[in-house]
Amino acid sequence: MKLLYIVPGTGMGQAEMERRRRILQSSAGKDVQVDIDESDRGPTSIESSYEEYLSVPDLVTRAVQAEKEGSDGVILGCFGDPGIEAVREMVSIPVVGPGECSMVTAALLGHRFSIITIMDSVVASMENRAKIVGVDEKLASVRSVNIPVLKLANDPALAKGRMIEEARWARDLDRADVIVLGCMSMAFLGVSDEMQASLGIPVVNPAVVSVKILEGLIAAKLSHSKKAFPFPPKFGKPT
Amino acid sequence: MKLLYIVPGTGMGQAEMERRRRILQSSAGKDVQVDIDESDRGPTSIESSYEEYLSVPDLVTRAVQAEKEGSDGVILGCFGDPGIEAVREMVSIPVVGPGECSMVTAALLGHRFSIITIMDSVVASMENRAKIVGVDEKLASVRSVNIPVLKLANDPALAKGRMIEEARWARDLDRADVIVLGCMSMAFLGVSDEMQASLGIPVVNPAVVSVKILEGLIAAKLSHSKKAFPFPPKFGKPT
Amino acid sequence: MKLLYIVPGTGMGQAEMERRRRILQSSAGKDVQVDIDESDRGPTSIESSYEEYLSVPDLVTRAVQAEKEGSDGVILGCFGDPGIEAVREMVSIPVVGPGECSMVTAALLGHRFSIITIMDSVVASMENRAKIVGVDEKLASVRSVNIPVLKLANDPALAKGRMIEEARWARDLDRADVIVLGCMSMAFLGVSDEMQASLGIPVVNPAVVSVKILEGLIAAKLSHSKKAFPFPPKFGKPT
Amino acid sequence: MKLLYIVPGTGMGQAEMERRRRILQSSAGKDVQVDIDESDRGPTSIESSYEEYLSVPDLVTRAVQAEKEGSDGVILGCFGDPGIEAVREMVSIPVVGPGECSMVTAALLGHRFSIITIMDSVVASMENRAKIVGVDEKLASVRSVNIPVLKLANDPALAKGRMIEEARWARDLDRADVIVLGCMSMAFLGVSDEMQASLGIPVVNPAVVSVKILEGLIAAKLSHSKKAFPFPPKFGKPT
Amino acid sequence: MKLLYIVPGTGMGQAEMERRRRILQSSAGKDVQVDIDESDRGPTSIESSYEEYLSVPDLVTRAVQAEKEGSDGVILGCFGDPGIEAVREMVSIPVVGPGECSMVTAALLGHRFSIITIMDSVVASMENRAKIVGVDEKLASVRSVNIPVLKLANDPALAKGRMIEEARWARDLDRADVIVLGCMSMAFLGVSDEMQASLGIPVVNPAVVSVKILEGLIAAKLSHSKKAFPFPPKFGKPT
Amino acid sequence: MKLLYIVPGTGMGQAEMERRRRILQSSAGKDVQVDIDESDRGPTSIESSYEEYLSVPDLVTRAVQAEKEGSDGVILGCFGDPGIEAVREMVSIPVVGPGECSMVTAALLGHRFSIITIMDSVVASMENRAKIVGVDEKLASVRSVNIPVLKLANDPALAKGRMIEEARWARDLDRADVIVLGCMSMAFLGVSDEMQASLGIPVVNPAVVSVKILEGLIAAKLSHSKKAFPFPPKFGKPT
Repeated sequence: MKLLYIVPGTGMGQAEMERRRRILQSSAGKDVQVDIDESDRGPTSIESSYEEYLSVPDLVTRAVQAEKEGSDGVILGCFGDPGIEAVREMVSIPVVGPGECSMVTAALLGHRFSIITIMDSVVASMENRAKIVGVDEKLASVRSVNIPVLKLANDPALAKGRMIEEARWARDLDRADVIVLGCMSMAFLGVSDEMQASLGIPVVNPAVVSVKILEGLIAAKLSHSKKAFPFPPKFGKPT
Repeated sequence: MKLLYIVPGTGMGQAEMERRRRILQSSAGKDVQVDIDESDRGPTSIESSYEEYLSVPDLVTRAVQAEKEGSDGVILGCFGDPGIEAVREMVSIPVVGPGECSMVTAALLGHRFSIITIMDSVVASMENRAKIVGVDEKLASVRSVNIPVLKLANDPALAKGRMIEEARWARDLDRADVIVLGCMSMAFLGVSDEMQASLGIPVVNPAVVSVKILEGLIAAKLSHSKKAFPFPPKFGKPT
Repeated sequence: MKLLYIVPGTGMGQAEMERRRRILQSSAGKDVQVDIDESDRGPTSIESSYEEYLSVPDLVTRAVQAEKEGSDGVILGCFGDPGIEAVREMVSIPVVGPGECSMVTAALLGHRFSIITIMDSVVASMENRAKIVGVDEKLASVRSVNIPVLKLANDPALAKGRMIEEARWARDLDRADVIVLGCMSMAFLGVSDEMQASLGIPVVNPAVVSVKILEGLIAAKLSHSKKAFPFPPKFGKPT
Repeated sequence: MKLLYIVPGTGMGQAEMERRRRILQSSAGKDVQVDIDESDRGPTSIESSYEEYLSVPDLVTRAVQAEKEGSDGVILGCFGDPGIEAVREMVSIPVVGPGECSMVTAALLGHRFSIITIMDSVVASMENRAKIVGVDEKLASVRSVNIPVLKLANDPALAKGRMIEEARWARDLDRADVIVLGCMSMAFLGVSDEMQASLGIPVVNPAVVSVKILEGLIAAKLSHSKKAFPFPPKFGKPT
Repeated sequence: MKLLYIVPGTGMGQAEMERRRRILQSSAGKDVQVDIDESDRGPTSIESSYEEYLSVPDLVTRAVQAEKEGSDGVILGCFGDPGIEAVREMVSIPVVGPGECSMVTAALLGHRFSIITIMDSVVASMENRAKIVGVDEKLASVRSVNIPVLKLANDPALAKGRMIEEARWARDLDRADVIVLGCMSMAFLGVSDEMQASLGIPVVNPAVVSVKILEGLIAAKLSHSKKAFPFPPKFGKPT
Repeated sequence: MKLLYIVPGTGMGQAEMERRRRILQSSAGKDVQVDIDESDRGPTSIESSYEEYLSVPDLVTRAVQAEKEGSDGVILGCFGDPGIEAVREMVSIPVVGPGECSMVTAALLGHRFSIITIMDSVVASMENRAKIVGVDEKLASVRSVNIPVLKLANDPALAKGRMIEEARWARDLDRADVIVLGCMSMAFLGVSDEMQASLGIPVVNPAVVSVKILEGLIAAKLSHSKKAFPFPPKFGKPT
């Protein structure tokens, strides 16, 4: 089984890409190969709806190519699940987003979950995403650490401290019983297990659960409904 | 007061653009000038989420330019309100979408409204859009005539017949008491008044109500909340 | 185009009525004449459901007369939209309420809006009104300054101070990104622009948006659905 | 214990009032006296929001008087619960409406209930009332027999036939497992037991359950919350 | 009329059972006899979902027997309404739960109610129960005093103090205008009238309202819908 | 990794248990061992809430034992997820139900899903379960084939025919774009792939997705939140 994780943007650098690939691979089952790639063009990070939209056209192109190359499934490498409806329309292989995978996992684990994310500028998008995924009744809150994505990697101690701080508020004030890390740069910090131990409630890592859910769908011979996400009538199935 | 209606795509042709501009202008108040323009790149029509996403990057660019050129407000020329969060993030002048303007107008006029649109492939997007606008409790149904956009203009008699037929089902079966035309090509067919007379319930024309609501916002010195749609943190306000 | 703003009560006094008419007129388009009138009987102000109900019978009578006199549309001059279903049943010309006009405008401008109103005694009514209008999912909170209507006009400095104070709480605590002034006496204080500048988020003035939305409906040849608000079967259309 | 059932209108005639009183009394407990009275002015029947609003001012007056006369509780004699917020604001004794009493009873008895009412013109009002009562998630449908109130009494066989017919559709098509009679003239037809036997699912008679719920509240020393329904600030408690 | 209140567990002791029976009987109407009994096996108190589930099989058995013995209706003696769907499936006589009776009563009395209960471990169950009853839109909060059931009876002064304390927070912070006692041991403490006087808002006692609502249903010849709660297909009606 | 699938009842027979185990094992990853066991007592099949409740006490006991025996996770072997809150309270290892796993999977794959189940008597329970899981907004319908569980296995051709028939209605009438098999006996019929091919939309097999989701949770070091499902205060953690 071959999965492709597509970074919806450019400029991450080969080393970081390879580091992330290894983490994803280590979450995968024995017979699963996880590849990683950037799309051709796109923002260096996504902290706004504008950057999310900028990333979509080339993300779709990369996903279409992945299907032709024989990938068995695609993970959109941004918690906002950018353009997932568009990607699904253009391919038949299963496509998952880390946001939706994390939210449904959180819905299974407790009564109310909170998302800890990067910047206030993406809070409303995540609340809206929860409505479309259909689990918004269980969303207790979205809290941000207000650290830009690119700074997060440079100061992981600060990041971790702030993430735990906001997660505590979510648990104690917003009554969350499950925490979701709401940014892929948080997911690859390697702190979710430590946070889980510290907080005493489950902490859902979107990188890990995306791999596991996509593996599960492929094993179950399931993909998104082409009735729900039909090929665009004007184009039909890409050839 | 100067409004810009941006067609989110290319290939409409100068004549049709000018025809639409005149219709928009005729809906506008005395002191209001309505301009029209295409974005640089984009699909010839939007019948899928994929095409909607394709249209957004250049639509944003065109809106940013409009603000610099002194436009007082922008109408996104597609019923799906493509990328409206992104556009709003990048400008300060008010930005409205025909979908949201039609839906809130319909909510004012009755208890339940139905949207008559082009293709089954956009029905779910519109239902999701209604959730984000926040009026989905009043959405009775979305029905499609299943005629592609580009064919609609070529056979207006067929289009009108099918639109009235589906609107009747919406009224009699889905209990809609207000009808919304769910496609800009329908809006510019010039049939909404006739439909309204024939059906005996209000028929909301998205072209007309977009102009009136945008005029009203500008007169009331209102624009979208920059707390809700902040400039992307990485860029700040475009200069 | 001729609009009538009906004060649902008595005792406002000619001077204040004229002052309000001038403000409404100044919000209106060039070809629009705004008239104002009281109904024959009714409370001096509305701070309870009881007073709201007291105001309705004569408000309906005045609206029916307005249609006969050739008015093109009616604004109910109270934020609670008193008896709007009854008024709409009895006339064919468009009838709008400041509450509903403000709420749908707020829904267009942001993700979450708060209403700043006069007294705790009307908070629940406004929450219920938001449910009927259909935008309650976007209502962040209703906060009151707890100053009676009649005192509000006598001490505008106190009123403005308290309004800004509660609006700040709404913005910072309830996460509102749009503010609605929830009382016509607040609307006519002339402080909404200043509040908007001070708060940094849109402040919707119900007097202004009622005029603009009603103008827009009339220009778009739209009125409320008579399927939704039929003439009472026993009476039929008033003659 | 003394209950007053107030007919919110005039012209019912002494004989019919007495007939209804006897039915109400027969539903009451041993130590309970049920009185009946009309309000001073009001419509002969209520088939529209307009008539409902017309009935409220004198209905409030009659209820205030009832409290002074020593009644222990009041039933508003119309399924639409006309002006119940206003009545509750003006008195301290418990006030119940047949609509709300029937709806919460139906919510206890099954998963989905349908209301069978008189005219299409009141369907939307009832759907809105269910939202305010807070049980709308369990409302399967509102169906009308389209027989005016005043004709209902003159042709009880026709009425009963149509009521059973619509109740069958509600049960078999709308999946209702409980039926509510949605008009007091239906309630006093004496057909609910027969309907229940014929349909095989519970049929809630609003006259009966209003008496029982009001009795229960009084016995439990409960009345509506004066925090929820405060005396109008301008008047305070009527003296 | 004969009602049976079934304690879903064992070990309460004859004296306490008799004390509770007398309280229930004193709430009942003149022609009503209230009996009380334990089920054969079950937990000594219910402070978790696990204990709730443990109590159900014998609770059903006892209710089936009650119907055979000629009881006219059954009250499940735990605020969580344990296994009420199962009990209803197995009998035809009306079965009510104190939780649902209290919640719908609270919905009638105000706009928002809060439940004051024993332990944090049952809060989520009660929120879920409110969803199934269908009145969750009016549930302001569930607050616990965090005193175990068995300790509650031993230190009534502590219990009452903490109950009033949490009810105040519910009223002042969560904006509840009605309070519900969310545990039968609280219901039988004899403090609800005092709490009501102290708080100035209605306090619903689940023991009392369960008796009154069940009495009312029986008088109105109503029972739960057998379409909603059919006899299990494999067994049919118990004989 | 060792998973235990617990049949919540008795009488299935060793051969059928072993057949089911092999199917579950064939869905599992390479390093995963799936065991199967019955609980000590319980119904032969679950077609009612009553039988569901009957099955819970011994199901909990068996799950507690599984944790002690070193199982890494538990699957409750009934689509109704019987007593899942109780089981989760009593253990720390992850516990999943086929109903919830199927519903969240369906939510990921499309906009609206329908459940095809056995008998009308369980339809309401499944609708209620969807509310608690939190995905009810995406539930299009629950349709039953009205074939008892025990007959289903004896006439698989009839079963398959009826399942496809109802799934077609769900797809074409209820607008479902994903189908869920709502009974474990359906899951083990071996028809889901054929149904998926025939219907052209995804068919979620609860047996398969339960295994995959539980595997994924264990791999991700996630279990249900003990804040959401605490050990019963009176017992604490079983020893």
